[in-house]
Amino acid sequence: MSEQNNVRYELYYWPSIQGRGEFIRLAFEEAGVPYIDVARSPQDQGGGVQAIMRLLRGDLEGLPPFAPPILKVGNLVIAQVANILQYLAPRLGLVPDDEASRVQANQIQLTLADLASEAHDAHHPVATSLYYEDQKPEARRRAGHLVTERLPKFLGYFDRALERGGKGHDYLVGAGLSYVDLSMFQTISGFRYAFPKAMARIESSIPRLVALHDRVAARPRIAAYLASERRLPFNESDLFRHYPELDVEPAKGA
Amino acid sequence: MSEQNNVRYELYYWPSIQGRGEFIRLAFEEAGVPYIDVARSPQDQGGGVQAIMRLLRGDLEGLPPFAPPILKVGNLVIAQVANILQYLAPRLGLVPDDEASRVQANQIQLTLADLASEAHDAHHPVATSLYYEDQKPEARRRAGHLVTERLPKFLGYFDRALERGGKGHDYLVGAGLSYVDLSMFQTISGFRYAFPKAMARIESSIPRLVALHDRVAARPRIAAYLASERRLPFNESDLFRHYPELDVEPAKGA
Repeated sequence: MSEQNNVRYELYYWPSIQGRGEFIRLAFEEAGVPYIDVARSPQDQGGGVQAIMRLLRGDLEGLPPFAPPILKVGNLVIAQVANILQYLAPRLGLVPDDEASRVQANQIQLTLADLASEAHDAHHPVATSLYYEDQKPEARRRAGHLVTERLPKFLGYFDRALERGGKGHDYLVGAGLSYVDLSMFQTISGFRYAFPKAMARIESSIPRLVALHDRVAARPRIAAYLASERRLPFNESDLFRHYPELDVEPAKGA
Repeated sequence: MSEQNNVRYELYYWPSIQGRGEFIRLAFEEAGVPYIDVARSPQDQGGGVQAIMRLLRGDLEGLPPFAPPILKVGNLVIAQVANILQYLAPRLGLVPDDEASRVQANQIQLTLADLASEAHDAHHPVATSLYYEDQKPEARRRAGHLVTERLPKFLGYFDRALERGGKGHDYLVGAGLSYVDLSMFQTISGFRYAFPKAMARIESSIPRLVALHDRVAARPRIAAYLASERRLPFNESDLFRHYPELDVEPAKGA
């Protein structure tokens, strides 16, 4: 696998949600490389949310991160999902070596990050600082546009990317699995949880993406992870949230 | 400067706005490296919006981009601002060589991209496909939270990043100017245009960032660019929009 398996990788992310941290967890799990999910260890052992807050407060030297997920490797403290994955992927054997493939992988990952933000803003269209319950009319309106316009546009794009990809169309970048395939799996999983009705409508038009999701889910290490207690259940404090009232077509004229 | 000055760089971006393309334009302008702003050349010479549409449609081989800005260099077609800048910066002499600096630069750029998206969603909180006029109540509510919570939080963070940076605190990454300083300049410029009242309140608490903005604006090539016709004026079809009704504190209880 990798020559770096003896490196100590510390992931700092909210301990009760998949969220954006899950894109990082999946990379470690697929690679079979050990990592410490710091905030999920007990607070009296240096874990808990307090461990994240110390990094955000800037107790370490250098640039403090703006938000989790955060990866600490030695003295290097890295934030932003796509940035973390770009650092990790060559070390975990999860991206081809050539620059064109890496540029393409990063491009897809950033487009997935944009889509993840749209998933978040569907339940928080006004402000992250407010409860969902305080922005429900706006959420209803935004989610309607998400499930009828944005989500089919993004997923259709990724499905075409697979179609135009290498021989066999099995993976998004190059001939083998890369980190963006893992992130694509997570994206499909999240939207299936949050918007099952919308996804049922959309999935017939994105067969390659559905097949990719299934192909990733069947990988031995991913399957073992998904069946383990390390995989947190989706919930309504998370990035992807299931509110049935949002999983609908927009009202006429909305 | 760079050994790559004879490379043909083609930027594809909407010809009538600064938008996210401006982060790329500023890098070329500061480096003094020629680039072709393809969609700003006449349609009968291969320019215009049609040139962008050809790339989005996927007329070229490989992965079509999801959205502009797009950089074409030979056969390489690159999308996503942070991805383009990460590719360009070493070639334009706009980022240090070491991995830690590049990781930090990319992290800051991605955080600036998040802030740019918040600027966009302040006037389009429901859907990009709708006019601003069709989402004004939601925009008023979201913009209130942006100017009182999010904008001070982001800018305060970047100001502290400068404070904790290298000696002199002059630049965001390393000892000299990098591409993220140019993007920071553009971000401050955009928010000053869009939310002048809010920025007047915030700026006293971010002195290092204001000084960085002025330092970038005074660089000879940037000053020449800003005074040229290549610098498009801000306008209300752009990423940063000035709607006076959004440049206010939120109503009590909003």
